[in-house]
Amino acid sequence: MRSLLLCVLASLAAATSSATEPPAVPYPEGYRHWLHVKSMVIQPGHALFDAFGGIHHLYANKKAEQGYRSGRFPDGSVIVFDLLEAPAADHTVQEGARKVVGVMHKDSKRYAATGGWGFEGFKGDSKTERAVGRNAATACFQCHTAKKDRDHVFSAFRP
Amino acid sequence: MRSLLLCVLASLAAATSSATEPPAVPYPEGYRHWLHVKSMVIQPGHALFDAFGGIHHLYANKKAEQGYRSGRFPDGSVIVFDLLEAPAADHTVQEGARKVVGVMHKDSKRYAATGGWGFEGFKGDSKTERAVGRNAATACFQCHTAKKDRDHVFSAFRP
Repeated sequence: MRSLLLCVLASLAAATSSATEPPAVPYPEGYRHWLHVKSMVIQPGHALFDAFGGIHHLYANKKAEQGYRSGRFPDGSVIVFDLLEAPAADHTVQEGARKVVGVMHKDSKRYAATGGWGFEGFKGDSKTERAVGRNAATACFQCHTAKKDRDHVFSAFRP
Repeated sequence: MRSLLLCVLASLAAATSSATEPPAVPYPEGYRHWLHVKSMVIQPGHALFDAFGGIHHLYANKKAEQGYRSGRFPDGSVIVFDLLEAPAADHTVQEGARKVVGVMHKDSKRYAATGGWGFEGFKGDSKTERAVGRNAATACFQCHTAKKDRDHVFSAFRP
């Protein structure tokens, strides 16, 4: 009887949890063939080096392309922040191993609590190891609110 | 009579010239929506800084995508070397003004003399100002012969 009770409680907890937590952001399959928005290198000494040091490229799917043009990203927009190591040698900065695939996935209902955007980071070349998970509000959205007037997106398309 | 002779000679010269010179490489319209192959920063102090200093991105059209996979680029393949200023500030390297849009355009007959590739550079954001013109053999192909076993292409697709 006790084990049944525990089981029911556990199920209830799981149900409550899944009802209040936003659904997981899917891995952005095929993003390497999306529009290349822009790139930037963040070097040692920069305030964001620990989190974002390296060379990053931003990619946009078709819906996000509309968002970059209009300033409002429709549901279904996906932006990828592809962060690679950026080893410097012989007066060059080259692309190294992938550190994380950051994702912003627009769904104004599912992710209403974080500006309509789901945030996730997939570690290295993994499509399943998640770096953000339940911490999107503090780990991502908190900074992105600074760009509320641009639909929480920092980057702009470089022609 | 003399003016007629001059006219004939001029026409012959023009005909000879157009027969021996490869046709101009067209501007790669729409390349910013092509596959982003890879990127690199070349900094002051590098041997190629004068020619290629800055941040460059390589883009490939659909046919060139096949070439990056197979190692042999079919006719119609176009590769763009998009070179931008790369101002460094506050421990970042960012994208600046466009310096040149370099182009490799595969046509094994037209550009037989330079490995089947036509080479051109379009200055800054211009679609008409040409930086290479008739100097492709010495200004471009001479270096690219080092990669003859890879169909004269230096870059490789970064997954």
